[in-house]
Amino acid sequence: MLEELKQRVYEANMLLPKYGLVTFTWGNVSEIDRESGLFAIKPSGVDYDKLTPEDMVIVDLNGNKVEGKYNPSSDTATHVELYKAFPEIGGIVHTHSSYATSWAQAGRGIPCYGTTHADYIYGEVPCLRCLTKEEIEEAYEENTGHLIVNEFKAMNKDPKAVPAVLCKNHGPFAWGKDAHEAVHNAVVLEEVAKMAYRAETINQRIQPAPQELQDKHYYRKHGANAYYGQNGGK
Amino acid sequence: MLEELKQRVYEANMLLPKYGLVTFTWGNVSEIDRESGLFAIKPSGVDYDKLTPEDMVIVDLNGNKVEGKYNPSSDTATHVELYKAFPEIGGIVHTHSSYATSWAQAGRGIPCYGTTHADYIYGEVPCLRCLTKEEIEEAYEENTGHLIVNEFKAMNKDPKAVPAVLCKNHGPFAWGKDAHEAVHNAVVLEEVAKMAYRAETINQRIQPAPQELQDKHYYRKHGANAYYGQNGGK
Amino acid sequence: MLEELKQRVYEANMLLPKYGLVTFTWGNVSEIDRESGLFAIKPSGVDYDKLTPEDMVIVDLNGNKVEGKYNPSSDTATHVELYKAFPEIGGIVHTHSSYATSWAQAGRGIPCYGTTHADYIYGEVPCLRCLTKEEIEEAYEENTGHLIVNEFKAMNKDPKAVPAVLCKNHGPFAWGKDAHEAVHNAVVLEEVAKMAYRAETINQRIQPAPQELQDKHYYRKHGANAYYGQNGGK
Amino acid sequence: MLEELKQRVYEANMLLPKYGLVTFTWGNVSEIDRESGLFAIKPSGVDYDKLTPEDMVIVDLNGNKVEGKYNPSSDTATHVELYKAFPEIGGIVHTHSSYATSWAQAGRGIPCYGTTHADYIYGEVPCLRCLTKEEIEEAYEENTGHLIVNEFKAMNKDPKAVPAVLCKNHGPFAWGKDAHEAVHNAVVLEEVAKMAYRAETINQRIQPAPQELQDKHYYRKHGANAYYGQNGGK
Repeated sequence: MLEELKQRVYEANMLLPKYGLVTFTWGNVSEIDRESGLFAIKPSGVDYDKLTPEDMVIVDLNGNKVEGKYNPSSDTATHVELYKAFPEIGGIVHTHSSYATSWAQAGRGIPCYGTTHADYIYGEVPCLRCLTKEEIEEAYEENTGHLIVNEFKAMNKDPKAVPAVLCKNHGPFAWGKDAHEAVHNAVVLEEVAKMAYRAETINQRIQPAPQELQDKHYYRKHGANAYYGQNGGK
Repeated sequence: MLEELKQRVYEANMLLPKYGLVTFTWGNVSEIDRESGLFAIKPSGVDYDKLTPEDMVIVDLNGNKVEGKYNPSSDTATHVELYKAFPEIGGIVHTHSSYATSWAQAGRGIPCYGTTHADYIYGEVPCLRCLTKEEIEEAYEENTGHLIVNEFKAMNKDPKAVPAVLCKNHGPFAWGKDAHEAVHNAVVLEEVAKMAYRAETINQRIQPAPQELQDKHYYRKHGANAYYGQNGGK
Repeated sequence: MLEELKQRVYEANMLLPKYGLVTFTWGNVSEIDRESGLFAIKPSGVDYDKLTPEDMVIVDLNGNKVEGKYNPSSDTATHVELYKAFPEIGGIVHTHSSYATSWAQAGRGIPCYGTTHADYIYGEVPCLRCLTKEEIEEAYEENTGHLIVNEFKAMNKDPKAVPAVLCKNHGPFAWGKDAHEAVHNAVVLEEVAKMAYRAETINQRIQPAPQELQDKHYYRKHGANAYYGQNGGK
Repeated sequence: MLEELKQRVYEANMLLPKYGLVTFTWGNVSEIDRESGLFAIKPSGVDYDKLTPEDMVIVDLNGNKVEGKYNPSSDTATHVELYKAFPEIGGIVHTHSSYATSWAQAGRGIPCYGTTHADYIYGEVPCLRCLTKEEIEEAYEENTGHLIVNEFKAMNKDPKAVPAVLCKNHGPFAWGKDAHEAVHNAVVLEEVAKMAYRAETINQRIQPAPQELQDKHYYRKHGANAYYGQNGGK
């Protein structure tokens, strides 16, 4: 069942080594079929160069494995919580990509310093707090999902406009309308994290890009008046 | 029409991924045919690995599409302004290359710290101010071109001697006598941006290279007394 | 004799250039056969692209060459001391990998700033003192081994839980249950060293990851209650 | 004439792009035949992917072209001075390799922070002063050679033990017993420059490696008591 979904999720997972976002097995991508409420996700700890489409694991929104010979990613419970709370997203990716993870380790959100960022992400990429000892011990991966959801609500952030987050001392999650767009956003996040790192070194009194420039670039590519690419009306 | 021009512009665009200057579709190259007043430019938002010479879009100096099935680059209006104001240039490139964009995000021009820079660029690569809210809302891409032109005039900079500029919180534009030389200068700019970044980290009291050394290297490669390469008289 | 061991050690050595951990001949991997008390190690100063399985040198735990046409790695005596003192390890690797060596040159251990680190290494990767002039002149490589062993004892560190160390002004050693795992840990170490470097630049008041998060990730992958990958009980 | 020399110099030049030491044509390698007093050097400004062994230019120690259809490297006069003053060297390389050039731009010598450096270079890699306006205008490339020679004499540095130098605001020269060893040393220099850059960021109170450790590593590989590799007596 869901062979096309598994193929797409396989291909999206294989983009992670292609774009240099993973070392060894440090990443996973999923995509959900909203009709059935099932999603496909990478199996846990399987090498990318041995991965096949059939290895993808099918999981339901209770986190139960429905099909597959392997255990799903150890981060599956986080994916479940995000799919449940964010009905507008269809794909999720977690990596330990180097620059984004360095910001997460540093415990800082990534300010919007330029249009590369604003073209895809509206405003700062937030870095959340660590889970408490109780949250970790009770249900680490599930509570990671709860924290992302609750903090986005508390910050009044739209997950479509801010398709990425940093978990403190851990690493990034990114998402999109499907697995492919989720990986695309993870690549953007890594580039943005790299440029912000360097920009702060070049100018220690750096300020975020002016709001009107952020708006211009974000809305040049998103929403009713977008004119970037081949779909706009210009 | 202009098949050779489209071929050259296609090839110049394909140098951007080859030299690591672009992620996804974040760059565009154009070249103008001065006789007809028409230029070829990359279509907007089309992936580099799907690009063909026939996809190049022909545009006139009023910014109107003359030929091509795709929309031209969203930055086309900036190219138009530069071609109109700088008759000595024949090719233009815009990228979000990592180090040059980091300087742009930091809002600083790149000082000339050495001969790698002086061999190609006479003096600092300037970083311009952001556009105002009014300039952005009225005609963002066109006004980006106006700003570059006006600031080069105000600074009395010769666009042949300073073939690159940083737009604050955005990224670099570079140019040259044709599309190929424009890309060559974009590669130089990225290398120079990288070395300047590192040199400032190594010595926080760093000073620009002495003027006589800058002059020596620039004029060793440019002008009547050049002797670098196979064209000089030495 | 020990043809399979030589083959495995050859393959593990060839992973060093694959993962970008060595320049020229700056690295060596060994693996021990605990039954015979013999280990195979890379020959000294032989280029990786000329290396063959038969070139591996067999050495006993007195440091004497038992088989092989080449001299063993100049660091052989360090390997001997580690194999003698740490019976739970089966493979050792030494490199001058760039980030880990930079921390060694800086004379600082690598703090545990996140889960990438905690997934494999329990707590800080220690940086040991330099050998004294007497220790260097008497028996440099052997005394390097003694120092690692003695400092691990003094710090009460378990070499299974902390499978890497930095030798001040020199570079890293890493180890594991066999040559392949030792190289895997050397790759982890380099990634962790890179992220810690960047994280400290991003936040100069950075603190190590909370202990409960380190524990969670380490024990998610190690010990009786591990559930990462395909071997856990989850 | 000197076909083998041209072949060797061609191959050594081609190592520069292989090891990532050059962008475009920013580098040149030569090797001298001490019997005839002639050396082969890369032609000026010719692309590496078009270079052939026959393109190498033969030059005498007066700097006159003896054979070849191209102009020799614009830095030929510097090579001449080094060959005349340092009879123990047989090959020379000049690059704008990124990290070494950044140190040169910063105007600082590279301290010996570890054994990677000490294995090949005895003590600091010096960064010389800029040429004066008069020296530049009179004979820039020749005076660059004079400066290197005079400063090495003034510092009492042995060019065999310190096979590299940084020219301020310009970039590195390296040398060796032949062209191949010169390029090898240029690769070492770039690695050492990279590690020193990072080590200073990690620890701002860093000190050079203890002299006894530098001595140990240098003499483990050089001189009568060397035992690294397959030529030593151990």
